[in-house]
Amino acid sequence: MYKPKYHIFVCSSSRINGDQKGFCFQKDAVGIVNNFMEEIQDRELDGEVMITNTGCFGICSKGPIVVVYPEGVWYGSVTPDDVEEIMDSHIENGEVVSRLAL
Amino acid sequence: MYKPKYHIFVCSSSRINGDQKGFCFQKDAVGIVNNFMEEIQDRELDGEVMITNTGCFGICSKGPIVVVYPEGVWYGSVTPDDVEEIMDSHIENGEVVSRLAL
Repeated sequence: MYKPKYHIFVCSSSRINGDQKGFCFQKDAVGIVNNFMEEIQDRELDGEVMITNTGCFGICSKGPIVVVYPEGVWYGSVTPDDVEEIMDSHIENGEVVSRLAL
Repeated sequence: MYKPKYHIFVCSSSRINGDQKGFCFQKDAVGIVNNFMEEIQDRELDGEVMITNTGCFGICSKGPIVVVYPEGVWYGSVTPDDVEEIMDSHIENGEVVSRLAL
């Protein structure tokens, strides 16, 4: 239950003081989170793949940032339109999307 | 640079709509984040250990939740006072803190 096969983290620029501002949030990180949620549900991967929004990863100029564990693959300049490819390639076939990888 | 040896995620109840409310936040998750930041700096582990605050992990009743990758160890009912033990045992010696593990 506490061990998803893949755990996807998306920076939503959420600060611990409650503010939500930053590059990733401005560049539609919420759309990225929403698209991952829809793809996970559509593919019936709820038990296997978890999505979590986060605060800043510290490399804002390369955002929006998506990090996939357990491998620890970092993706940059991600858009909501890239979510389907990350799901098809990385999550379903174990192949990193090299054009987005940092 | 994009591959910390350990990546520690702490739920700060940050929602993608900008709200910050939830069990972990109420139970001093911000204090947990701050203590991890201080411990990482004091031990000069900045390059090796990364700390990131997150939104909800979905098991609020077991919060505050801390998840450590790459192993994917989930800790529950964490307090700011537990941070030193997690750093000593898990991060510095690779031994999971079993009394907190879910």
